[in-house]
Amino acid sequence: MTAEPVEPGRDAHAVLRDRVRRFAEERDWQPFHTPKNLAMALAGEVGELLAEFQWLTPEQSAEVLADPEAGARVRAELGDVMIYLTRLADVLGVDLVEAALTKLDEAAVRYPVEQAKGSAAKR
Amino acid sequence: MTAEPVEPGRDAHAVLRDRVRRFAEERDWQPFHTPKNLAMALAGEVGELLAEFQWLTPEQSAEVLADPEAGARVRAELGDVMIYLTRLADVLGVDLVEAALTKLDEAAVRYPVEQAKGSAAKR
Amino acid sequence: MTAEPVEPGRDAHAVLRDRVRRFAEERDWQPFHTPKNLAMALAGEVGELLAEFQWLTPEQSAEVLADPEAGARVRAELGDVMIYLTRLADVLGVDLVEAALTKLDEAAVRYPVEQAKGSAAKR
Amino acid sequence: MTAEPVEPGRDAHAVLRDRVRRFAEERDWQPFHTPKNLAMALAGEVGELLAEFQWLTPEQSAEVLADPEAGARVRAELGDVMIYLTRLADVLGVDLVEAALTKLDEAAVRYPVEQAKGSAAKR
Repeated sequence: MTAEPVEPGRDAHAVLRDRVRRFAEERDWQPFHTPKNLAMALAGEVGELLAEFQWLTPEQSAEVLADPEAGARVRAELGDVMIYLTRLADVLGVDLVEAALTKLDEAAVRYPVEQAKGSAAKR
Repeated sequence: MTAEPVEPGRDAHAVLRDRVRRFAEERDWQPFHTPKNLAMALAGEVGELLAEFQWLTPEQSAEVLADPEAGARVRAELGDVMIYLTRLADVLGVDLVEAALTKLDEAAVRYPVEQAKGSAAKR
Repeated sequence: MTAEPVEPGRDAHAVLRDRVRRFAEERDWQPFHTPKNLAMALAGEVGELLAEFQWLTPEQSAEVLADPEAGARVRAELGDVMIYLTRLADVLGVDLVEAALTKLDEAAVRYPVEQAKGSAAKR
Repeated sequence: MTAEPVEPGRDAHAVLRDRVRRFAEERDWQPFHTPKNLAMALAGEVGELLAEFQWLTPEQSAEVLADPEAGARVRAELGDVMIYLTRLADVLGVDLVEAALTKLDEAAVRYPVEQAKGSAAKR
C-alpha cells in the first residue's frame, strides 16, 4: 500500500501531524489520547521495533532492509512509532522538529567536535 | 536555547535528518550508529519520557506543559526521542514520514470510522 | 497449563534461574544470550506488558485480572518479563533478589518514611 | 551497602515481595501504585538498563561487570527493574515465579529441543 501523496509545497511532517489528528478525531479517540496513554503506546511500539533487532548482530541489523519480510516489518514499526510520537507531541502542543533541533544545538555545545571525535563516552 | 531556524521552503523534517546526520559524521560516530544500537538508544530515551508521566493521572499528564520545569523536561525528551528515531530511519534508508503515512492509510482500512467510533478495542 | 512444581525447601527464584539456564543450554542458545541482546528482549516484553495497560484508566488497570482474557495475557507477559530478567541477571552473574534488596535499603535512606509520606516527588 | 540478610529457610523472592510491599505502605504510596503506573515505572527502569548497553558490542556487554563503575550501575538497574516488577505482580496478585515457570513450560512445548537447537527463529 502506498501512502496518499503529500501536496507539493506543504511540509511533510505538518501533513502527517494533521492527518494523525484527523484520524483520531474522526474516530472520537481524543478521550483515550492523553499524553500518559500515548507515551505508553509509543513505548509499546518501540518495544516491537526492538524485537526486530534483538537477536541480530550489529552488522546484521545494518542489512535488515535487504530482507523483504523483516524489512517490511521494520518499516511498519518505524511508521507506528512515528505516528504515536507525532500524536503525543501534537496533543502536548510541542513542535517535534523544533524540539529536536533545539536539543541538537544543545548537544553540539556539550559534545564539541574535537573532543567528541570517535569517543565512546556518549553518541 | 533556540534552534537555528529552518530555511524557508525546505521541508523541516528533511532539515532535521540532514543536521542529525552531519552531527554524527562530524564526530565520527557512524561506527556506533548501527540500527541495533540506535533502536536501543531510542528505547532508552522513550524510557525517560515515560518517567515524566508515570505518577501523573491522565488528567495531570494533559497539563504537564503548564509546569515550566516538567514542561521543559518533556519537551527535551520529545526532542531526544525524535533525534534517535530520525537517525535510525536515516541509517536504514527509510523515509519516516512516508512510513507513517503508509501505516495510517492501512489503519484507516482496518478501523473504519463507523465501527471504530469511541470504541476501546484499539486506538 | 500449570508449571512443574518447585521442590519443597528449594528457593523458588533459584529454581527458576536454573530452569531458564537449562532451557537455553539445551537449545544451544547461549551465543545469542549476550547481556545486550537479553536487555533488548526484556525491553520488548515490557513493551508488550505496557500495551495491555495503555488505554485503561488507572482504576481499570487495577481490575485487569478480573477479565479472564486480559488477565491471562497480563500473567503471561509478567512471566515473559521475569524469564528474560532472570536470564539476564544469571548471564551477568548478578543475584537479582540481592540486587533488589540492596537498592531497597538504599531507597529507605533516600526516602525516609516521615518525609516521603504520600509525597508525589518519587515513589 | 549490603542488603539486610534474608532469614534462613524463607523464600528469597517472597521476602523481597514483602519488603517492597512494606516499603510502599509505610510511605502511603499505594494510591500511586496502580498497575498502569507501575508498568510505566518498570519500563522507565528498563530504559535505564538499556542505556548501559546501547553503545557496547555484544562482546563488551558480556564483560560489563568487570568494570567497577559500569558494573555497579548495571547491578543497581537490575535491582530497580526487579523491585518494580515484583511490586507490579504483587499489586495484581500474580505469583511472578509461578507465572515465569508456566511460560517456560509452554515455551518448551513450542520450541522442542531438537528443532530449536541453535536456530535463529526465536530464543
